[in-house]
Amino acid sequence: MKALGNQLIAELYGCDAQIIDSVQKVEQIFVEAANKANATVIEHNFHNFSPHGVSGAVIIKESHFAVHTWPEFGYCAVDIFTCGDLTDNSAALAVIKNGLQAEHISVTELRRGLLDLVGNFNKPSEKQRTDS
Amino acid sequence: MKALGNQLIAELYGCDAQIIDSVQKVEQIFVEAANKANATVIEHNFHNFSPHGVSGAVIIKESHFAVHTWPEFGYCAVDIFTCGDLTDNSAALAVIKNGLQAEHISVTELRRGLLDLVGNFNKPSEKQRTDS
Repeated sequence: MKALGNQLIAELYGCDAQIIDSVQKVEQIFVEAANKANATVIEHNFHNFSPHGVSGAVIIKESHFAVHTWPEFGYCAVDIFTCGDLTDNSAALAVIKNGLQAEHISVTELRRGLLDLVGNFNKPSEKQRTDS
Repeated sequence: MKALGNQLIAELYGCDAQIIDSVQKVEQIFVEAANKANATVIEHNFHNFSPHGVSGAVIIKESHFAVHTWPEFGYCAVDIFTCGDLTDNSAALAVIKNGLQAEHISVTELRRGLLDLVGNFNKPSEKQRTDS
């Protein structure tokens, strides 16, 4: 089925604790990943939390990348959400896995906004009538 | 099982096309949702895309909220990612559903970073030895 969005839910284990505790390194890796995916980066905001961990998002024209890291567990939760079929999400994942030096990765793909289902609920003409 | 993160994957159908095409309204709803959840908002960045749609993220201390809207389909893809158990994610969802005037909503909860699994892969002492 066709979908409006594509989301990769990636769990990365055994990551390098020093890398994933560095806001600068994590931010650099995620911007590089977005570029390697041929996504258009709009902005990126990353923060280092006390005592450990980095949170951040890269807003891309095609949706977003997000990451949250737990250096004390060597674990990172990564989301890659894209629209359209022009981005290379496998290339982005490779940059992220290598950059964070993850020993293990599991990825689940979610298809968001299945068009058949969306069509059943979309009644713009009715809504417009009630708005006026 | 205990997990490091909690993620709600929400699909909202039959939303008000005018509201979800307004970057100001969508941003206001999501900041209000984060506040109602007792999350600590760090920053929020929303964009209006041509010809339709809004993308945005609220970075909170506890992780992030993200939304992508398709006014032409009355559809919004929403993610609520939180850490810890101090946020009220149901309250956030209620603000979002009401604010976007969604007729239908489906929510899937993902538990990210299951602690039993994370523990199997976390070998910081070995990694530190190889780093030096």
